[in-house]
Formats: sequence, C-alpha cells, structure tokens
Amino acid sequence: MTVHPAHTRVLTSDETGELAVPFTRVALTNGETFDRYCTEGPGSDPEVGLPPLRSAWIDGRGDTTPYDGRAPQLVDNGRSAIRRGEARDEWRGEKRQPRRGANVTQMAYARAGKVTEEMRYVAVREGCDVELVRSEVAAGRAIIPANVNHPESEPMIIGRRFLVKINANIGNSAVTSSIAEEVDKLTHAITWGADTVMDLSTGEDIHTTREWIIRNSPVPIGTVPIYQALEKVNGEADQLSWEVFRDTVVEQCEQGVDYMTIHAGVLLRYVPLTANRVTGIVSRGGSIMAGWCLAHHEENFLYTHFDELCEIFRQYDVSFSLGDGLRPGSTADANDEAQLSELRTLAELTARAWEHDVQVMVEGPGHVPLHLVEENVRLQQDWCHGAPFYTLGPLATDIAPGYDHITSAIGAATIAMHGTAMLCYVTPKEHLGLPNRDDVKTGVITYKLAAHAADVAKGHPGARDWDDALSKARFEFRWRDQFALSLDPVTAESFHDETLPAENAKTAHFCSMCGPKFCSMRISQDVRDRFATDGMAQKSAEFVELGGTVYVEA
Amino acid sequence: MTVHPAHTRVLTSDETGELAVPFTRVALTNGETFDRYCTEGPGSDPEVGLPPLRSAWIDGRGDTTPYDGRAPQLVDNGRSAIRRGEARDEWRGEKRQPRRGANVTQMAYARAGKVTEEMRYVAVREGCDVELVRSEVAAGRAIIPANVNHPESEPMIIGRRFLVKINANIGNSAVTSSIAEEVDKLTHAITWGADTVMDLSTGEDIHTTREWIIRNSPVPIGTVPIYQALEKVNGEADQLSWEVFRDTVVEQCEQGVDYMTIHAGVLLRYVPLTANRVTGIVSRGGSIMAGWCLAHHEENFLYTHFDELCEIFRQYDVSFSLGDGLRPGSTADANDEAQLSELRTLAELTARAWEHDVQVMVEGPGHVPLHLVEENVRLQQDWCHGAPFYTLGPLATDIAPGYDHITSAIGAATIAMHGTAMLCYVTPKEHLGLPNRDDVKTGVITYKLAAHAADVAKGHPGARDWDDALSKARFEFRWRDQFALSLDPVTAESFHDETLPAENAKTAHFCSMCGPKFCSMRISQDVRDRFATDGMAQKSAEFVELGGTVYVEA
Repeated sequence: MTVHPAHTRVLTSDETGELAVPFTRVALTNGETFDRYCTEGPGSDPEVGLPPLRSAWIDGRGDTTPYDGRAPQLVDNGRSAIRRGEARDEWRGEKRQPRRGANVTQMAYARAGKVTEEMRYVAVREGCDVELVRSEVAAGRAIIPANVNHPESEPMIIGRRFLVKINANIGNSAVTSSIAEEVDKLTHAITWGADTVMDLSTGEDIHTTREWIIRNSPVPIGTVPIYQALEKVNGEADQLSWEVFRDTVVEQCEQGVDYMTIHAGVLLRYVPLTANRVTGIVSRGGSIMAGWCLAHHEENFLYTHFDELCEIFRQYDVSFSLGDGLRPGSTADANDEAQLSELRTLAELTARAWEHDVQVMVEGPGHVPLHLVEENVRLQQDWCHGAPFYTLGPLATDIAPGYDHITSAIGAATIAMHGTAMLCYVTPKEHLGLPNRDDVKTGVITYKLAAHAADVAKGHPGARDWDDALSKARFEFRWRDQFALSLDPVTAESFHDETLPAENAKTAHFCSMCGPKFCSMRISQDVRDRFATDGMAQKSAEFVELGGTVYVEA
Repeated sequence: MTVHPAHTRVLTSDETGELAVPFTRVALTNGETFDRYCTEGPGSDPEVGLPPLRSAWIDGRGDTTPYDGRAPQLVDNGRSAIRRGEARDEWRGEKRQPRRGANVTQMAYARAGKVTEEMRYVAVREGCDVELVRSEVAAGRAIIPANVNHPESEPMIIGRRFLVKINANIGNSAVTSSIAEEVDKLTHAITWGADTVMDLSTGEDIHTTREWIIRNSPVPIGTVPIYQALEKVNGEADQLSWEVFRDTVVEQCEQGVDYMTIHAGVLLRYVPLTANRVTGIVSRGGSIMAGWCLAHHEENFLYTHFDELCEIFRQYDVSFSLGDGLRPGSTADANDEAQLSELRTLAELTARAWEHDVQVMVEGPGHVPLHLVEENVRLQQDWCHGAPFYTLGPLATDIAPGYDHITSAIGAATIAMHGTAMLCYVTPKEHLGLPNRDDVKTGVITYKLAAHAADVAKGHPGARDWDDALSKARFEFRWRDQFALSLDPVTAESFHDETLPAENAKTAHFCSMCGPKFCSMRISQDVRDRFATDGMAQKSAEFVELGGTVYVEA
C-alpha cells in the first residue's frame, strides 16, 4: 500500500494502550525517522472490504440496536437496473444489519462530557489533547463524521483548530466509468492522502457502487443524496418529493454514509437573485432544488422538512454538509446577494441542527477573486457560529480550464489559512470531463500541498517540521531522503532521474538544473566547511568580526 | 505561430498610426471577438532572426553611435571552446555593429519629459495613457527593459500599475541541452505568454547560445553575467575579479541583453547571518559572491564597483535586476535577518542607480510561508521607493518537489496581488533537474494564471473581462469558444475530448463530468428559459413576488 520503500505503517496508542492509530513512518538515510499523518488505512481486498475497526466501540456504548432495515429496491440502482430487472455486481462481502439509536452523535457525547474512543483516536492522530477534541466537537467548531454503520472508518476530525483536511470527489456519471474503476479511485485517493471521499455517482448502479466504496473505505464517505433521489424519479426534478428524498436518505444512512450534502438553503425567494448572474446556478444540487421550487411554486422541501432530517441523522450520526447551492460559478458572481443570502440561511440551519445534537459543516465556493476570499470565511465563521467551513477551491480565475487544480489551489491555500477546515479538491478535468485515476492523484497532491501551506501559515503546531526535514535533506544532498519525504516521492524521483538516472547521482552534490560547478547548495556548504573549524557558533563570531573589519561604509 | 485556429494576430497603433502593436484576437462563434495581450512576436526563422523593429526609433533619437566593439574571444564560449580551439554553431544571421550613447535610458528620457516610441508602444499594449507610462518610468516605479542593441524586442513595461508580467528561465547547464533546444524553448515560452526570458546558461557555448536567443527574441532578455564570468575563470569563484566581470558585462551589453541580475547586495558582513539557516545560501550568484568575499576577505566587488556598472548600463540602457543572493531557500529561513539586511542594501543601490538614470527592478524570494508573503512586498516597496519587485514564486511550502510550479503559484499570486510587478516562473522540475520543453510550457501557463489572478484581485482595468468572456461561453455551452478563450486551448480541448471526442459534443449542453441529466448549467438555463417570457427584469420581478408570497418565515 505504501508509495515508497522508505515508508512503513506504524501504529500508536494513547496512554491506555488500547488504540492503534496509523502513521506513515519515513526512514531517513541518516538514521532519523519522520512520522506523517496517514489516511490510507490498513488496505483491503475490494471484494472482502475492511475489518470493522469501530464495531466494539459502538457496541460498547450500548445505545444502538441492529434492525432489519429498509428493503432493497431495484430503483436504488437506477433506471438501467429496472430495465434489466436485476442489480449488477452486487456486494459479495459481509452484510451486516444496519443499526441505529436515539441520539448517538459525537456531538451529543461531547456535550454530555463523554470522551469517546473516536475522540481519543483523533487526539492521537492530531497530536493534541483529547479535551481540545471534545470541547471543539461540543461547541460545534469541529466534527468527527462517523456513521455507526461505517465501522470500517478510522476517526478523523474537521475543524479550524486541527490540521486542514482535503476531500476527493469520485463517482461515475451517466456517460462513463464502472464500479471497479470507482473503488480503484477511492484507494488511489486515500493512498495519496485524501481525508474524506465523496461518492458523487449519478450514473448506473448507484446503490451498489456506494456499497463497495463504503465497505472499502477507511475514511469518511460523503454523498449528495439528491442525485440518487433524482435518478429514482427518472431524472425529472419536478417529480422529486420529500418522501422519495427521505427514503433515499434512510437508505444511505443504513449503508453507512458519514456526511451528506443537503441543499436546504436554496430558498424560493433566493432563486431570482441568480437571474442576472454571469453563470446562474452552477451547483447541481442547487439547480435541481431551484428547478423544483419554481416548478411547484413551493418552498424547498429540504428546508421545510429540515427538523425531520435532523431526527434521522441523529439516529446514525450522519453529519450535515450544508450545501451552497447558490455558490458563484465565475469570479463575476462571487460574494453576491444570492450567495450571501443562502449563507445566512445555512447559519440558521446550523443552529437548528445543533438543537438536535447533529454535527454540521457548511460548504463554500467556488469561484472567488483572491481579494474577496478572506471575506468568505470571515462571514461564514461569524454567521455560522464557528461551524467548520468546507470549500470547493475557490478558483481565483476562470481563464485556465485544464489547470483548475492550480487556479483553485491558490484560493484554497488562502481560504484555509484564514480558517477553512476542509478543502474539496478540484482536478485538472474540472469543467471539462470526469476525472480519471491520474487526475484524482493530481487533485489530491495539489490539495495536500495547499492544505499544508495553510497549516504552516497558521503556525499549526509541528506543521513546519515536515518542511524543515525535507529542506535539511535537500541542503545536505540526501537525495533519497528528499524523495522519501516528498508529498509524491514517485514523481520527485522520476523527474530527477530524467536527466541523471545513474545510481551515484542520488548521492551527488548537484543536479542537472545547475550542474556541479554551479550548485549554490554545494558552494554554500563549502563556504560553511571552509570556515567551520570550531563549529557553527565560533564560525559565526569569526564572520561577524571579519565583516566588521573589512566592510567599507557606503 | 498561434496556438489555436480561432486566434489571429492583429496590429494596432495609437493616434499617430505609426505603431504596430500586436494583439491576439480570439474569434468567437457568436460573432464577437476578444483581444488579448500578445508576447509571441512576429515569428522568426531561427537562423535569420527577427527584423529590428526599434532600429529606426533608436537611430531617430541620434544619441547612439555604432562602434567596433569588444573583440570576440574563445573563452566567451567556455572551456570546451578553448579545448576545441574554435566556437561551435556560430550565429549565421546578420551581424550588426554594437552601438552605445552617453545616457540613453528610458528613465533618462522620461525624466527629461521626452515620450519615446517605446513608451507609446507600451501604452497601446497596456491600454493606458502614455503619460502614466512616462511618469511611472521617470519615478522609477516601472521599467521598460530595452537595450539599444536588442532592436528586435517589442517594448514592454514592468511596474505595479501595469499588468503583472512573468519571466521564463531557459538556458543550458553543464550536464545537458543544446543551442537548438534553447532557441526552441525561447519560442515555446513566448508562444505561451512569457513576457521576458532569462538565459541562465552555465554550460558550453554560452556566448553563441545567447546570440541565437537575443536575435530571435521579441521579448526582453535577462542574464546573470556572473555565471559566464565564472566559466571564464575555470569555475573557481576565488579567481573572479572586477576586470573579468566588467569584460563580461560589456560583452553582454554589446550583444543586447536587456537586464542583468547583479548580486551586489551580498555584503561580506551579511554572509555569517546565513550560517545557522536551514538551507544556507541557495542563490547561485549569491553563493558565488559569498565564496569570493570570504576567500578574499574583501567586500563584494559588485558593490564596490557599483557606480562603474551604472556608467556602463546607461550607455546601452541595460536595466538592473538587483539579485537577492541571500533569499531564503526554505520556509524556515523566510524574512530572516540575512534576507532583510540584503534588501536594505538593494534599496541603497536602487537610489544609486537612479542617480545615473539607470532603470532598476529588485529581486525577491524564494520560499516564504503564506502569512509572511505580504510583508516581503510591503518592505520592498517601502525601502526601495516603489522600484518594481520581481520575485521567484515564492513557494508556500517545501514538501512538494515535482509540484513546485504549484507551491510557488500560490505564493506568486498572493505576492503579485500585493504589488509585485513581475513573477519569475518555477517549473515542475525545480530542485530536481533542468526543465524540458513541456516543463517550460507548464511553468509559463501556471504563472500566467497566477499573474492574471493577481490582476483580477487588484481590480486592474479590464482584467476580469477575460474571465467574464470565458464564463459566459461556458454558461452558454459554447465549448469551442471556451477552448479558444482558455489560457491553454490545446489542453482544454484534449481533456474534454478524452471522454467526449465526437464533434457534436462540442455543441452539447453537458460534458462527461455530470452527464446530460445532471448538468447544473443546463438546468439553470432551463430555469431561466421557463420563466423568462418577458425578459430578465420581468422574470426577476415575478420571482421576487412569488418568493414573497410563498416563503414561510422560520
């Protein structure tokens, strides 16, 4: 599973000795090691799935009960399953009964002062005090997405006091892709560091694809249930109803989805605010709900039934990801009245979810010019009482399709520095097509570096240690260590080897960029060595004295 | 030369009708056109070179004289030429006598209230008043790099009141690359939008490679003359002298180099300040000069002979790019005493150059965590009296070799938004090897999008028009226009065609990302169409009324 021979997976516990929290340990050639946050999980056979890490904890709390669950229907897998008269590639691994309780959210426990195993696990992962975890979850400033029906997941936390997280979107569309491809994209995404994965399938076999993904996922899985609900009504937004939606949500709660995007803030009165935009409504869920509202001349049923949704979510501990259906789809539309009106409603819904002890994060844009980025997170944090912000980029310009992982990484690093807790990746294929395996990796690496840049800028404890370890290796010409410490060791090493493939180039004191005579690092080290007879302090003193004597004041 | 069939090159003048300033015109399928800044020049046969656009202007001023110039020497092409006993691949196009004058800088003219053709050309390119150009150049807040011996160049301006520019580094190293490859990289870089190009060759045939590059370059060419000087003394930094350096500078002035990086701020007393850094000195020029200072126990000869350099530069109108030899090479070393001490000296040298009417820009880092980026440009602008800032990125984190075009684009967009005038690109090969042709393109496109994001964030007049044109095309499913308006139409179209290669997909109202049923843009347009019987205003009023009736207050 690991991406480099110098990487191993090590397991750590807190003082109880009961946990097994994974880290990626990087062995360096100078005998040191460097431990990194690890999302890749223990690895699984796709047809078997992962072991249920959290089952004993969930059982141990004694507040959930298995039950028969909703009967599967052909329509769960879309219209083609109905045409065929059967589902395809059904899940062949263990099938557990779904379970639920009265109120089993991490927020409910945290507010009751109870420290769960999930919180302890998260504290070890983050290297922080468990009380910080509990208190931030209790206050709603952080969430631990952890459906009781996804016991395979390794707990993780999303909140501004913790490491910035990234999400990778996968999922098929009506045009392309298969179940096997999507499971492979899942594994690929988490191997490279995705902290959560959203299954945004809109094509065939939606239910079955999701089952394969959840059973193999060590990271929380998010969905946008309106996509599946729309498939159940033949793709006609007008035909959607609370009943179809509710049924779909229960179906997904029972499967183990950890968080769901709910576009409950797209209110009827906000839709006209988009009429004069350059790009109207660009959120799929947002446009579906806007279409429904207008067709029925009624308020968004996700808004009017919001409390019922909360009552469902609290039984499974599903977290809200309050969707920004009216997010700007171009820099021209950023921070406009439509967007900010919806945000006010999302703030209201955040408070309502918290009344039910349901965990909440709030989604954000989109496309935003760089000078307007900070305002987005400031308003969201103010209005939504510190609930975690989860943004899609934002893209800082619209002119570079094919490079929107980069246009958006600029906005993403900036918005995360100002307090966004999770970043939804954008791949090079954004606006152009469905990302393939390589695009998923590029998107993940790009967002990991943006998230880390934000951690460093925030002064997050220990964040810069990684930069320092790599820079030290670079300065000391430990090429192998530089590769091993890279976010993507494979690419770093292959780029180096393109011009200097020989084994001894891995210990050479230069690369092909400047050649041996011009390597500043080598010259700089020579300068140090030449004058460093008695160690650094002595040398430094010498230099100052020398400089003082020789320097001619201008 | 153009990269897309919908692109043509159009020539525009000011009211005199005497100029021919190129723009890239994009023809859209709806009959509209969009004009973009064009750097690619008229195109040349590499063996012939470009026509001398500015010769008549330079002649017309009557203040320069042709002269015999310095006699070429074998050592100008490095040690291998000496071994061979002859130069290789010598320039076969027209050889003009070098010319020089007493004080022929654009700054001298601007200060004397004279508006040159170069200033008028620049004003048309930037779409601004020519008086803005003249006054900014006179004040030193902008430069027009334009050596009288590079008449092939199309004038361009670098300053915070103008469009943010980008530089592409090319040049061979001792390990790899040929003259033909470097000329090809030049053409490739400017085709994709590089505003200036630096020839950083450190390998063989330095003089000849540069001749081919300058004769074929419509953009200003920069160099770091200390690299060639070092080659002339067998790569031994100790053996460098003012005399060897001076001779090299004159050689390059006569060839037509437009700006030169001069590491005159690396003072002896600053060197010890780098001793405890994580990555010491990472600038090649900086480490060479630090090595020389320490070996000789003398002050940097570039500093002590700075006024003589100014006297040379003013005769040709070569601009200073004051090198930041002590720039941080890791986030750990950012904004430290070594860096800021050198910056104070660069400020002093800026003022000294201006006494000679010599144009100046100041180089900046490097590696800087995102929260420290703004301080860099703020201090530089304050201390250096508004002289243009020219930064290398900066990289916002050290952990992603192989992706440093992205780690640095984050810092670059941010620093440019705060007032940096030109960005030196970083390619994916940074820290790993010499960039090839594809890396050059990736670096250029990445920096063009970062520069444009900054222009938009600065509210630069007209900058967002490009975003709006593309977003409008996107929302109206004018796929061909979306490609044609893209910074890189080739990549955008090929990504789209990967999943939807059919011709009719170019007019389809969806892409493979979501498929036809789920395209939010299509749904959003349907929503508009359905309710837009009497145009937008009427519809908007209807919606508000409707919303007002139906909305249930929470």
